Amino acid sequence: MTISVFDHPILSALLGDEEVSSAFSAEADIRAILTFEKALASAQAVLGVIPAEAAVRIGEACDNFSPEIAILASGVAQDGVIAPTLVKLLREEVAEPYAAKVHFGATSQDAIDTSLVLRLKPLVGSFATRLDALIALLRAIEAEQGATLLMGRTRMQRALPIHAADKVRGWREPLHRHSCRLAELRERLLIIQFGGAVGVRGGLEGRGDAIAAELARLLELNNGPCWQVQRDCLAEFAGWLSLVSGALGKIGQDVAILAQNEISEVKLAGGGASSAMAHKSNPVGAEILVTLARFNSTLLAAQHQSLIHENERSGAAWTLEWLVLPQMLAATGAALRHASTVCGGLRFVAAAV
Amino acid sequence: MTISVFDHPILSALLGDEEVSSAFSAEADIRAILTFEKALASAQAVLGVIPAEAAVRIGEACDNFSPEIAILASGVAQDGVIAPTLVKLLREEVAEPYAAKVHFGATSQDAIDTSLVLRLKPLVGSFATRLDALIALLRAIEAEQGATLLMGRTRMQRALPIHAADKVRGWREPLHRHSCRLAELRERLLIIQFGGAVGVRGGLEGRGDAIAAELARLLELNNGPCWQVQRDCLAEFAGWLSLVSGALGKIGQDVAILAQNEISEVKLAGGGASSAMAHKSNPVGAEILVTLARFNSTLLAAQHQSLIHENERSGAAWTLEWLVLPQMLAATGAALRHASTVCGGLRFVAAAV
Amino acid sequence: MTISVFDHPILSALLGDEEVSSAFSAEADIRAILTFEKALASAQAVLGVIPAEAAVRIGEACDNFSPEIAILASGVAQDGVIAPTLVKLLREEVAEPYAAKVHFGATSQDAIDTSLVLRLKPLVGSFATRLDALIALLRAIEAEQGATLLMGRTRMQRALPIHAADKVRGWREPLHRHSCRLAELRERLLIIQFGGAVGVRGGLEGRGDAIAAELARLLELNNGPCWQVQRDCLAEFAGWLSLVSGALGKIGQDVAILAQNEISEVKLAGGGASSAMAHKSNPVGAEILVTLARFNSTLLAAQHQSLIHENERSGAAWTLEWLVLPQMLAATGAALRHASTVCGGLRFVAAAV
Amino acid sequence: MTISVFDHPILSALLGDEEVSSAFSAEADIRAILTFEKALASAQAVLGVIPAEAAVRIGEACDNFSPEIAILASGVAQDGVIAPTLVKLLREEVAEPYAAKVHFGATSQDAIDTSLVLRLKPLVGSFATRLDALIALLRAIEAEQGATLLMGRTRMQRALPIHAADKVRGWREPLHRHSCRLAELRERLLIIQFGGAVGVRGGLEGRGDAIAAELARLLELNNGPCWQVQRDCLAEFAGWLSLVSGALGKIGQDVAILAQNEISEVKLAGGGASSAMAHKSNPVGAEILVTLARFNSTLLAAQHQSLIHENERSGAAWTLEWLVLPQMLAATGAALRHASTVCGGLRFVAAAV
Repeated sequence: MTISVFDHPILSALLGDEEVSSAFSAEADIRAILTFEKALASAQAVLGVIPAEAAVRIGEACDNFSPEIAILASGVAQDGVIAPTLVKLLREEVAEPYAAKVHFGATSQDAIDTSLVLRLKPLVGSFATRLDALIALLRAIEAEQGATLLMGRTRMQRALPIHAADKVRGWREPLHRHSCRLAELRERLLIIQFGGAVGVRGGLEGRGDAIAAELARLLELNNGPCWQVQRDCLAEFAGWLSLVSGALGKIGQDVAILAQNEISEVKLAGGGASSAMAHKSNPVGAEILVTLARFNSTLLAAQHQSLIHENERSGAAWTLEWLVLPQMLAATGAALRHASTVCGGLRFVAAAV
Repeated sequence: MTISVFDHPILSALLGDEEVSSAFSAEADIRAILTFEKALASAQAVLGVIPAEAAVRIGEACDNFSPEIAILASGVAQDGVIAPTLVKLLREEVAEPYAAKVHFGATSQDAIDTSLVLRLKPLVGSFATRLDALIALLRAIEAEQGATLLMGRTRMQRALPIHAADKVRGWREPLHRHSCRLAELRERLLIIQFGGAVGVRGGLEGRGDAIAAELARLLELNNGPCWQVQRDCLAEFAGWLSLVSGALGKIGQDVAILAQNEISEVKLAGGGASSAMAHKSNPVGAEILVTLARFNSTLLAAQHQSLIHENERSGAAWTLEWLVLPQMLAATGAALRHASTVCGGLRFVAAAV
Repeated sequence: MTISVFDHPILSALLGDEEVSSAFSAEADIRAILTFEKALASAQAVLGVIPAEAAVRIGEACDNFSPEIAILASGVAQDGVIAPTLVKLLREEVAEPYAAKVHFGATSQDAIDTSLVLRLKPLVGSFATRLDALIALLRAIEAEQGATLLMGRTRMQRALPIHAADKVRGWREPLHRHSCRLAELRERLLIIQFGGAVGVRGGLEGRGDAIAAELARLLELNNGPCWQVQRDCLAEFAGWLSLVSGALGKIGQDVAILAQNEISEVKLAGGGASSAMAHKSNPVGAEILVTLARFNSTLLAAQHQSLIHENERSGAAWTLEWLVLPQMLAATGAALRHASTVCGGLRFVAAAV
Repeated sequence: MTISVFDHPILSALLGDEEVSSAFSAEADIRAILTFEKALASAQAVLGVIPAEAAVRIGEACDNFSPEIAILASGVAQDGVIAPTLVKLLREEVAEPYAAKVHFGATSQDAIDTSLVLRLKPLVGSFATRLDALIALLRAIEAEQGATLLMGRTRMQRALPIHAADKVRGWREPLHRHSCRLAELRERLLIIQFGGAVGVRGGLEGRGDAIAAELARLLELNNGPCWQVQRDCLAEFAGWLSLVSGALGKIGQDVAILAQNEISEVKLAGGGASSAMAHKSNPVGAEILVTLARFNSTLLAAQHQSLIHENERSGAAWTLEWLVLPQMLAATGAALRHASTVCGGLRFVAAAV
């Protein structure tokens, strides 16, 4: 049952990313939702909105609760979201007298969006690190191989000679900007979601904003206004993912062109085998970079469609995000991995000039 | 490890389609590839290109062989395709003196594309059946509820009264055309792939075309020229999938609008619950139809990008198809399922006119 | 004031198509709307729904009327469609006693959609002819140059030799299917739109269907049910346009690769000059084919989004089509032109094998 | 000859934006290219790379030169870019002995990309201003009408009451972030392009970087490394345009829903007329906001495809940008205009709660 190459037991070895996959397992999602529910109860206890004992009991339950997947699946099929059933099961787990204090004043979107952000946070950190490592690798290539003379090509024709350093600098400079962009957007992205039924933090004795602040503190996320209908930070992040995979796609396309036998200005380590031709060594990693870039650039359109989030919650637009963003993360993660391998095994060969 | 909602143990209950998922399991893919390899050997034996004993031995091996997933994954990570490792393993299984007769004159794309078509064939049949059933359901609604007076709305404003029959006919008529289109395209789509290393059926003593004809007969697929660089039939089919999900998305959008409390010209069976508001009954199925339509229409762009399939095989463009087409099938399958449920539980209520 | 390259006084020489541009001038649109209004009046007179004299007077007015563009623009800015103001002006032109018989029982969408179809009809014919000519050109190349030995390349690496005939056949065969597809879809596409305010042909003394039949006869279009909310035939046609430009994009990509200096298996007539390097000859036409293919494949997603056409007329979804379909026609027209030039000036050169 | 609604003499009144159209006229492009060429000569004279007299003569010629459009069009059709012919004509205008000093050490992309940035600069400023004005308008609505009780709706169903202030704040807050994002990206975006034939500022006696710095100073743009193969800042800006139109599309969708007759929680000034139903008042502006958002989100995918800019200049990928970015600017400009009109004429009406 593997529609997606990112989940496929075989193809994910080529196209997937383990770190992203772990973050988007059903288990990880449930754990993050329970983390939210626990922190929410704690915050509400701190603010005196629920009894301290309730928060303790809810926290214990959240720490130990493993709901049955089949029941959650059945609930989602009916409700369109995991939260109603999960909350119901958690309330049973918590039991009286505190059952009603679970998910108090919250709504499905609070739990699910905050779960997403909790899991994005380490991925954002990891992507930043991986990007830095790739930049360092490219710098090393420039230092070691930068003096190699290549042929510059414009419009697919030989133009004038360049140095390998020029080529690699053209690959590297966008990555610096991507690092910079990530630093700019992460503060906007990693914000808790807490708004209640219609996003106004109602029914909380006027302490909604204070609860939000405490919740953010506990979850080590940023605080901010409820963003349940404001999906721009997710769309911006999706754009960043596609900018990164696009920059890596340019590297892949260049490498695939330079590795053509007649050009051979690049030699690659570890080419792919052919089932028909033993003599071949295919630039598989370079091609995959192109594939992933074209894939992400297309999916980005769907994430932006979801900006049209009607009323106080759009089932249609919100669900669309679920179909798109995890894939874009996986594709970018896989692209970072391939870029590292391709560049790590790349040797420039002086052009015939 | 579930990036995709279609593979997700919980969310697939809402957004997935079991039939499509089964067709795209790794196991089903491997089985279909082995079916191809067996039939290829049989065809080549019939044509005298390999010994009859070789075909027998290969067929036995294909029937019983279950390669280890981890080895295939490791091969794919290196080669970009499953076939080189799978063929190598199968040759070991077949063993001498016939090992070299496995996959004889064939290439990875022959095995993988034909595997795809083998699995598309029953899905095409099933989608046709499901479409017919939906048409029949809509006809029944017209017959039973068609006389109900609704308000016609244009540009989101009340216009003039219509009958429910008018509304439902507007939903149904595109589905007839989709049936017709499927009949037209299925003959072009369900064609074996057999071309060898560069698509010219070389190295087969001039019997490549005869082998292809026999192969098609054995696999109960259509015969035709090698299409390894001609991806139009897959793109056309992807377009069909999006036409269908788009038609169902229009139904979903209409239903979600008519089910608004203030309009209430539609009552739905089995609405979704809210984690915050007990009084609500959400038109989840209708919203999901909109989600799936917007998703497919976006993905279609990626499938069309893959038409630019350079040279005699494009690793970049071909791989892109793998990321896209299975998802589109799953989304359309899920949409057919939801459309059936939504329409099956729908009751028109006379408008205040 | 030229946002679009297709309308740009300079860039359209590279990227535009005169035939498509003529069909989509404001003047052509107005003329086609007036043709619709005249035929509608004639049909209604034949059926006795309006007096014969009214039809004569309306026909005269339609033949001679040239509404002021600025007034129409002002009307569109208010109404979102051209028809209300155009009909108002036409009624003034017709004057009493027949003013009210203009656009009788019709709605904006009838006039505008039928105008579109009236202008698509000759374009469909022309595209079929241009496709046939390109197929014939490719056949001639196969006949004349087919024996030239080229290097087959898979995954951007040299594989095994092929003949130029193999390469060209891979370009040509999809075009045959595109011809076939166009023949299939044109009957569905070239259908009059006539439904009245909410698409049910109301207020016409029960003669709506008979009027539609006569209207189709007069306009030499097909008759069929009102399709104002059923946009599948336009989306299907958009898919066809992108299939064609995609097939031509594959030709362009192949040519650009084969024309690389180090490969030189293709020589092109009339390459483009560089402002910096006098020695260069750029494969401009081949690159443009790739550009147009990638453009159309993206736009196709927007045309499919418009399938979600809510209620009895969606201002949002309908308008979206206006932004998309003309561009796709122009891009495909330009691609057919470039493909013809590129292939017409192409000479294969035997590969070093 | 108007394929695009943005250029259409009638439809641009609905869908166009005059400011963007002016910036993208052929005349404006030529003027900006000539501004670049003049500044380049001045910078090179300052650095002693060309004689001061040459710069004076080139400057005079650039100030007064109006090349014939037909000749440029003919050149573009051949070369794929305007620059070779324009430079040739300008050299004839400058005449000996300084003709060869025109466009010295520069390439087509330098002239055309810098021309783009020169024209983007005022548009970026204008969009910032228009965004601020819209934010101020929304603030005023909150102040004046914020206390009106509306019904909050989730998943298209009545949920719990909210205030108009909550609704409007949900519209406004993303716009603040868009302002912030624009401030972040504008420094990266508004950078001169100057790289010469292959982007390494060669053939300039080692003074390429100094020329670039002086050129940036003269053009009042930022200086930076040559970005001819690094298209991320354009793609990022395209993403911003779609974020803005997406945020406005959400406003439009909300308004269209609230303006439904049965809901009527919003009254709009100046609705559109229907050609069939005198009683209607259509929320045209609100619908157009949805149209433009869906359009831009789709086009964004094409702009991101162009990140895969192979080698030292990609004719295919670069040209694709020309087909996309101007349209996105026009769509966003039009969306800002409509949002201002829709919100300016909007009156909330207390919900029946």
